[in-house]
Amino acid sequence: MRAKFQQDLLDISGLLVELADQSRTAIRRATGALLHSDADTARSVVDADDQIDADYRRIEERIFDVIALQAPVASDLRLVLTALHIAADLERMGDLAAHVAKTCLRRYPEPAVPPELTEVVQEMGQVADEMAGKISRVLTTPNVDRAAQLERDDDAMDDLHRKLLSIVLSGDWTHGVEGAVDMALLGRYYERYADHAVNAGRHVVYFITGESL
Amino acid sequence: MRAKFQQDLLDISGLLVELADQSRTAIRRATGALLHSDADTARSVVDADDQIDADYRRIEERIFDVIALQAPVASDLRLVLTALHIAADLERMGDLAAHVAKTCLRRYPEPAVPPELTEVVQEMGQVADEMAGKISRVLTTPNVDRAAQLERDDDAMDDLHRKLLSIVLSGDWTHGVEGAVDMALLGRYYERYADHAVNAGRHVVYFITGESL
Repeated sequence: MRAKFQQDLLDISGLLVELADQSRTAIRRATGALLHSDADTARSVVDADDQIDADYRRIEERIFDVIALQAPVASDLRLVLTALHIAADLERMGDLAAHVAKTCLRRYPEPAVPPELTEVVQEMGQVADEMAGKISRVLTTPNVDRAAQLERDDDAMDDLHRKLLSIVLSGDWTHGVEGAVDMALLGRYYERYADHAVNAGRHVVYFITGESL
Repeated sequence: MRAKFQQDLLDISGLLVELADQSRTAIRRATGALLHSDADTARSVVDADDQIDADYRRIEERIFDVIALQAPVASDLRLVLTALHIAADLERMGDLAAHVAKTCLRRYPEPAVPPELTEVVQEMGQVADEMAGKISRVLTTPNVDRAAQLERDDDAMDDLHRKLLSIVLSGDWTHGVEGAVDMALLGRYYERYADHAVNAGRHVVYFITGESL
């Protein structure tokens, strides 16, 4: 029974890695679509989110089956329930990547991001990409230090978000109210993506080591 | 054992009602603070969110204990796990109410909401308030019709959100880029509050009736 349960946890971990990779691919492609006004890629990110949602429900069902069939107790039960949190955060990261892609589509064929924000948005995309990558790697190769890095990445994201807003709110902004609103919401999508990544990372540490970060 | 489990479900339901009521009070007070530039009330909403977070964790622990001690199977297990979703949505509604309150504080002593948006923001607050109230009532007095109304309320919220953005983006907007950014984010907080309320409502129907909406 114990061996079976360990195998279940490994299976769940594998599914979480897949989900993390999908949410990572989503934010990377969404950022690329946004910066290059690439509507085809943006649409494919939006479409791919349905798959992420379906895979999330599949993981939920898997977790449900493990609890129902194995009836884990105490710390084992806590581990399995933690996987639910991780899956929920990863699913939400996929949604936010789709929102980024929709920002591209709303402005297409015009570029959604004005030149003075290209660099900061590119960096936000990169930080988001790396954060999702770390979640995936910590699931595969437990490393508490790497998970702890997610908090610092989140600080970097917050700094970038502040920088984005300061550019939008500077007296030099020439892209009107609509451009400002779009960029403020875009900044929030990346910031929320990072928040969910930090949450997922914390839960992953517990899931992998059985100890809180 | 069965009777004990039924009592556990009732206890959890009672805790969820409390959480729904707290998140409802939070959005009602946050909206009032916002519209009357009432910093004391806004600060109390932000402070009260810590209690909502703590109560959310308490419900999680309660659910965990029920699963660990009663080892419910099949549909019973599914019911208990559904309560986790409801609690998570309600907790997030509390966060969003705190964000609304912070919008008031960021502009204080200036009013955060310009006169031409007062009505739409007031209506958004009212819809949000009613949605949270319905969740609480459906938990207390199972009523699938009332839960189904949450979808229509969400449509009303989406309409209000569009109205808010159309006012912000109209040529008549005189409150600058910063005012526009603040109001766009504010609109998103209410819209997300409503999204979480709809999710919570769907799960409540399952939790109460064992059947999906």
